[in-house]
Amino acid sequence: MKPYLRRAFYYETDQMSIVHHANYIRWMEEARLDFMRQGGLDCMDLEREEIIIPVVDVACKYIQSVHYDEQVRIFVKMTAFNGVRMAFAYRMETEDGKLAASGTSSHCFVDRQTRRPVNLNRRNPQACAAGKRLLEAET
Amino acid sequence: MKPYLRRAFYYETDQMSIVHHANYIRWMEEARLDFMRQGGLDCMDLEREEIIIPVVDVACKYIQSVHYDEQVRIFVKMTAFNGVRMAFAYRMETEDGKLAASGTSSHCFVDRQTRRPVNLNRRNPQACAAGKRLLEAET
Amino acid sequence: MKPYLRRAFYYETDQMSIVHHANYIRWMEEARLDFMRQGGLDCMDLEREEIIIPVVDVACKYIQSVHYDEQVRIFVKMTAFNGVRMAFAYRMETEDGKLAASGTSSHCFVDRQTRRPVNLNRRNPQACAAGKRLLEAET
Amino acid sequence: MKPYLRRAFYYETDQMSIVHHANYIRWMEEARLDFMRQGGLDCMDLEREEIIIPVVDVACKYIQSVHYDEQVRIFVKMTAFNGVRMAFAYRMETEDGKLAASGTSSHCFVDRQTRRPVNLNRRNPQACAAGKRLLEAET
Repeated sequence: MKPYLRRAFYYETDQMSIVHHANYIRWMEEARLDFMRQGGLDCMDLEREEIIIPVVDVACKYIQSVHYDEQVRIFVKMTAFNGVRMAFAYRMETEDGKLAASGTSSHCFVDRQTRRPVNLNRRNPQACAAGKRLLEAET
Repeated sequence: MKPYLRRAFYYETDQMSIVHHANYIRWMEEARLDFMRQGGLDCMDLEREEIIIPVVDVACKYIQSVHYDEQVRIFVKMTAFNGVRMAFAYRMETEDGKLAASGTSSHCFVDRQTRRPVNLNRRNPQACAAGKRLLEAET
Repeated sequence: MKPYLRRAFYYETDQMSIVHHANYIRWMEEARLDFMRQGGLDCMDLEREEIIIPVVDVACKYIQSVHYDEQVRIFVKMTAFNGVRMAFAYRMETEDGKLAASGTSSHCFVDRQTRRPVNLNRRNPQACAAGKRLLEAET
Repeated sequence: MKPYLRRAFYYETDQMSIVHHANYIRWMEEARLDFMRQGGLDCMDLEREEIIIPVVDVACKYIQSVHYDEQVRIFVKMTAFNGVRMAFAYRMETEDGKLAASGTSSHCFVDRQTRRPVNLNRRNPQACAAGKRLLEAET
């Protein structure tokens, strides 16, 4: 699975002249959705079947500031998946390979109308199988 | 109609140490939706009837920079409304009454499913009447 | 100390029709800076002395979705402060008092030029004293 | 000059299930800074000499909605440059070549400390020459 590359945009900086910390949470989403799509678990396929994937929790540790126009390489690893919930870990590196930040997130599958939990194994076994394969993927 | 008050948030600044210009477009939305709600034209009422209000165009002139924690007073004026389209003008003032920025936006009413234009006069005459009253409102 | 009130903006929603999770991290910042200012530890006073306060880590648990125009009441508690680092806990409630989300963040004091840690007790004893009082404040 | 490619992120959508209009203003910035860097007028080179480039005005017409994960191709053209001010026009196309949006922006050069206008011809003739070349560039 290829890491996700992302250059910091000007509007992502704040008056400390570094990327504002909330943007890392957005970068984690970009990298996660890219990782899932690469692995055959495309969130748009699920949304078309009225399954949405809200975030249950998120965390990020900031180790080294990222500045405008610096490129970050984001490594995503799925750390849990059971068809009802899934979790990810993220490692964000600067271009010279230093750790800029690390993070985690967990998610559940929910029916868009009822907002009740969905078991992917029943609603979409193919997507569920893709999730299980992602859990075993090397990074 | 009361002007809309808004204090600039830290994360809205960029590395020039001023509020990033794209945020003014968001502030205009905040002020516009507040203005519409005050006048009985609540976008959520329309969304519940599957009518959405996409933006057709937007423009902003930046006269004086706004800094973190400064308060802006936004005066909204409806400049056009015919049940199919509407337009607004915005005047953003700093706390001491100086002009910080001015803007305009125009919008149409669209059916969420078909994405085709909606005539509010037919779909929701009450909301349409509210729009017409707003067009004549003093600011 | 008064809780921080915040109404969800339209542009903070995503296509799941709920507030996007990264915005809660921004809300925590708004509430924290308001809390600090109320307690006499104003980040702008420190920035004028070339002291900035980067985020060291952040975490958020999402319990109940927040929708456009819903108001959230954010309770901030300082959980650690020693003049070099500080930490906060957040409780975000919907208007009917239900827990929408909870979070934590920790921060350090850094010199803007050298980007090295600063001991607030030496650089600004008054701000340091304010921090210590905040640590003991009831919420 | 290569057009700027940008895929719409999930968090850029709003509850109309389209990219929120304020994000186009950010995309225009991404494309403009990329265009300027390609042409030897790098905003970071200028910031290192205490010259910043605030936005004077911005405008955007929205023709066709952009959805999550759709790719937009942004064509940038410099329409004015005299060393004191410059202006750009933008054309945003979807993958199938349809016009999604068009925009304009204008900018001035300002000293970071004094916030007064700067004549690039005097402060940095090399950057000024790059700007003049960009004005004549084909797109």
